[in-house]
Amino acid sequence: MLSNLGAGFGQDVDDSRPAPTNVRGAEYPRIHSDNRVTFRLKAPEARKVQLQPNDGAVENGLGKGPYNMVRGDDGVWTVTTPPAVPGLHLYDFLVDGVPANDPGSEAFISGRATSGIEVPEKGVDFYLPQDVPHGVVQEFWYYSKLTAEWRHAYVYTPPDYDRDIRVRYPVLYLQHGGNGDPIGWVRGGRVNFIMDNLLAAKKSVPMLVVMEHGYANRPGDGPNAPDVFEDLVIQDLIPTIDGHYRTLADREHRAIAGLSRGGNQALQIGVGHLDTFAYIGDFSGGFSARDFKADTSYNGIFKKPEVLNTKLKLLWVGTATAELYYQYLKPFHETLDKLGIRHIYYESPGTSHEWLTWRRHLNEFAPRLFR
Amino acid sequence: MLSNLGAGFGQDVDDSRPAPTNVRGAEYPRIHSDNRVTFRLKAPEARKVQLQPNDGAVENGLGKGPYNMVRGDDGVWTVTTPPAVPGLHLYDFLVDGVPANDPGSEAFISGRATSGIEVPEKGVDFYLPQDVPHGVVQEFWYYSKLTAEWRHAYVYTPPDYDRDIRVRYPVLYLQHGGNGDPIGWVRGGRVNFIMDNLLAAKKSVPMLVVMEHGYANRPGDGPNAPDVFEDLVIQDLIPTIDGHYRTLADREHRAIAGLSRGGNQALQIGVGHLDTFAYIGDFSGGFSARDFKADTSYNGIFKKPEVLNTKLKLLWVGTATAELYYQYLKPFHETLDKLGIRHIYYESPGTSHEWLTWRRHLNEFAPRLFR
Repeated sequence: MLSNLGAGFGQDVDDSRPAPTNVRGAEYPRIHSDNRVTFRLKAPEARKVQLQPNDGAVENGLGKGPYNMVRGDDGVWTVTTPPAVPGLHLYDFLVDGVPANDPGSEAFISGRATSGIEVPEKGVDFYLPQDVPHGVVQEFWYYSKLTAEWRHAYVYTPPDYDRDIRVRYPVLYLQHGGNGDPIGWVRGGRVNFIMDNLLAAKKSVPMLVVMEHGYANRPGDGPNAPDVFEDLVIQDLIPTIDGHYRTLADREHRAIAGLSRGGNQALQIGVGHLDTFAYIGDFSGGFSARDFKADTSYNGIFKKPEVLNTKLKLLWVGTATAELYYQYLKPFHETLDKLGIRHIYYESPGTSHEWLTWRRHLNEFAPRLFR
Repeated sequence: MLSNLGAGFGQDVDDSRPAPTNVRGAEYPRIHSDNRVTFRLKAPEARKVQLQPNDGAVENGLGKGPYNMVRGDDGVWTVTTPPAVPGLHLYDFLVDGVPANDPGSEAFISGRATSGIEVPEKGVDFYLPQDVPHGVVQEFWYYSKLTAEWRHAYVYTPPDYDRDIRVRYPVLYLQHGGNGDPIGWVRGGRVNFIMDNLLAAKKSVPMLVVMEHGYANRPGDGPNAPDVFEDLVIQDLIPTIDGHYRTLADREHRAIAGLSRGGNQALQIGVGHLDTFAYIGDFSGGFSARDFKADTSYNGIFKKPEVLNTKLKLLWVGTATAELYYQYLKPFHETLDKLGIRHIYYESPGTSHEWLTWRRHLNEFAPRLFR
């Protein structure tokens, strides 16, 4: 099925195979047995083509880049990266400076649709579909009075949710990151498979997971108006979810977590509404850690460890050793220790600010909920 | 909020507004009051930038293209199209010949992620969210023995599906087109809003709508092996859906429809399994119409009008006056008349081979089901 074995890329492709994220029939990108990845793009008229991991904003498992691609006589440009870290890595081709998707890869939402490649992690299956009962992810639409618009959330419901309608469930509100989209936790985060597998292994209790779009503006607000997502969650989203789904509608059965910007939001909304949430998960929320001042942040509540330690059944903070925000989150954890704030701290080894980190975070966090 | 009013595009943008498909905060593309559309892309290093409607394969509501874009001194390229037909139109920017997405527009799956722009249709709301009860779209995963892989279908369940679990529902199997993805019927086709609105107006009965990926290969099959989607539907998909959802599991309560390639599939699978389906919808299935031979197609069943007329409660054929396949589908309808095959024929006025056509098809087709 190798359609281009003789194309003379100067790369040995014998040990390589198409990535699991390739679209139907696409032979490239290809992952070698040592996790080097070969990319190609047909661009006979271009003057310069580069592979740019992760928008170039921060390094990901493909490295920092950009990698210059080399033009073949047939107008096909190729490059092979150094061995990649396992996980889902977003990237663009820069065609004469303009980001273009790889027609061979699935696209993931990160501001815009961006190509992604999954480099498999050998022997690890906690985020893969397995022969266990499966829940579903529902796209749920509702009207927000606050923002005066139709919005949707994705709602994971566990297996048998629609069979025994006497059962009510706790709820985890789970947020995406900056410029992201709530579908990210499904496509990139594999939330449904992680929850299915945890539940089947009896490592977690059945729960709903609600993923909304973490941007909200009042109608008529200008571009610099403050985001009102916190108000949306408290005033619109939670009452709507509690009205439409069979939830256990109290603080003891409600958690909020998120990744990156969503981690900042989870911390902000969680400690700001201790009457609403008893569980908080901050996954790689770098800026809230960087800017943390015990005296002033969050109305000084972190100066009252007895309040947080009593009210919160779980404060969970996660980072990854290869992400930029590690420099903020590890000290934040140490500060929490010094302040006497009870919490769990977790480091994902070797991963960057990307989905494999947050799959691990969810897999560590969810079993501690609602026990 | 116009950030580039002085950029000298040579276009009057005063009467224009961002398209409803723009990503958060994007000012371009902009739709003028006469439905001209202005696109822009920053590409200072590019030598040539074009706007290409619909991959250039067939004309869509933006016209045929490609349209050459003009470079400004700031490296921003722009073009304004002639007045567009309302509807959702896919397009690319060709940057030195390479397709690149518009960072200002949402992407839709058409083989790969492709930019789309919705040009609103004045006074028409049957596919918009309204203040009526809403169903949900579920992402449902299952293991196919036939293809030896985990697959997923999207399943629309009507309002209150999970409230009264004594009720069972008929099922419409609804297919996307060539190179498409089942999410297309949600994102582009607005299937959930159309069904919600029909139901609220009592124009249709409550039903499930199942959307699967219309490509299936046995494990180990080479690229030229026959697609086994028909077997997948009959052997795996229908039994699995009937096992997991509260369906009315007989032919009188089962329909199959699809658009373009999916229309061909619906016709093929529907008339090939009259014991399984009593309703068939062929939306713009051009090739099956073009290649139709009454004597030999579908094992000659169209030579037995008494069989089809007795068994089928509905055979529905739709096209659009501005699509290429109109030249095949209108004669196909006339041939059906000559053969004495009872059917409904519908032409969408003014639209091309794109989503507004198929929204109209679904809106005409669904009310005739399961009556």
